[in-house]
Amino acid sequence: MELRLAQGERLDDLQNGYEIIQDESDFCFGIDAVLLAWFARLKKGAQVLDMGSGNGIVPILLAARHQQVHITGLEIQEKSAALARRSVAWNHLDEVIQIVTGDIKEAADLFGKASFSAVTVNPPYMTGGHGLTNDRSSRTIARHEVLCTLEEVIREASLVLEEKGRFYMVHRPFRLAEIFSLMVKYHLEPKRMRLVHPYVDKEPNMVLVEGLKGGNPRITVEKPLIVYREPGVYSDDILQIYGRSDKVS
Amino acid sequence: MELRLAQGERLDDLQNGYEIIQDESDFCFGIDAVLLAWFARLKKGAQVLDMGSGNGIVPILLAARHQQVHITGLEIQEKSAALARRSVAWNHLDEVIQIVTGDIKEAADLFGKASFSAVTVNPPYMTGGHGLTNDRSSRTIARHEVLCTLEEVIREASLVLEEKGRFYMVHRPFRLAEIFSLMVKYHLEPKRMRLVHPYVDKEPNMVLVEGLKGGNPRITVEKPLIVYREPGVYSDDILQIYGRSDKVS
Repeated sequence: MELRLAQGERLDDLQNGYEIIQDESDFCFGIDAVLLAWFARLKKGAQVLDMGSGNGIVPILLAARHQQVHITGLEIQEKSAALARRSVAWNHLDEVIQIVTGDIKEAADLFGKASFSAVTVNPPYMTGGHGLTNDRSSRTIARHEVLCTLEEVIREASLVLEEKGRFYMVHRPFRLAEIFSLMVKYHLEPKRMRLVHPYVDKEPNMVLVEGLKGGNPRITVEKPLIVYREPGVYSDDILQIYGRSDKVS
Repeated sequence: MELRLAQGERLDDLQNGYEIIQDESDFCFGIDAVLLAWFARLKKGAQVLDMGSGNGIVPILLAARHQQVHITGLEIQEKSAALARRSVAWNHLDEVIQIVTGDIKEAADLFGKASFSAVTVNPPYMTGGHGLTNDRSSRTIARHEVLCTLEEVIREASLVLEEKGRFYMVHRPFRLAEIFSLMVKYHLEPKRMRLVHPYVDKEPNMVLVEGLKGGNPRITVEKPLIVYREPGVYSDDILQIYGRSDKVS
């Protein structure tokens, strides 16, 4: 198989046996996606929906960590979806990952209710805000809630999850109260949370949350995940997360 | 003034110029109360309600940290309220602190709506559970939701707070999703949170939250507060919190 890269595209080695095609003019994946895929606990046979898949990074990272799972990546931007499909094919993951072009807001209509056992999502972090209503660039769509809100993400995740299905999301801590409030509203009971701090003595800048469809109230707040030991030097936890390519199930 | 201590009572030095009478057979204060009083930011002239005051520890600690505030301590158990009143008198704080015997569930009826600018509360952490319905010991009442639920605490706090009034609570992290969900429901928007970890690499065992009546959604998650540097040795942060007796306003 020969890979043809267009102008501005590059092939990145994920250090886990897979590679991903990224468009430099587009939204490239960050540590958020890596931590989300690491945080998600998938059972053997899991049917996973990754909402807002972008260039397919989360499905590919999940496929690298788990055997006998199937991941559907839902992405509204055709250009990103096409990029994701090329990466899936390049990695020979067509049996494991399917990329669907479509809108998160219509996920339950597209796939049916209770059709997945797990959902992962790395949604836009920022609220819509002023002056963005006409900005439809892929970076804006990936970062700001111009095409879907946090409530729509959580509502659709709850609808497509089967009872006792698991919801995994990475987000920003400043939205935490909204996140928990909406998860409770839509019966995705928060069960596990991990705050990610750049340094041990700094405020967190990411949060990983796990919800259980139809669960009872009781959350485990895990110890902080620290990214850097010192400037430019990753912590042991992060080195382990990045370096790990062994299949876990 | 002469202090008479009954059998089982002791006088503890709070290291801030004040002392407190505690009954050893009863619920004695812990680090939770100290951290709550430290976390609360009171403005000059603040009218504060401390819900479930027990032996009066939080009002006395608040009085030590702030000038020109008035604190009402609400306590349902007459024995604890009487102990609190004796500590208030012993410390010559009668002008600053008033202890009222009454039920948290009826706070808005007792004091009127929008009658306070700040509320502090160190509520029972555990849900009612089985086998406790007939246990009315003061320790059980202080630890389990047998006389009032988290929802009732948050509902009444919201009712007695004026618009833009502040709500301060210490609780257990495992209730965090309920806490945020109920605060949002009752318009006490979570604005600040600090998790308290026994050690830097351990799960948190306390959480401090601040809510703003009628606020907009956006929370600041602060850096972790670490209690011990090593077994038996407090961190610098905790030493500073315990040692600090200077008036801050």
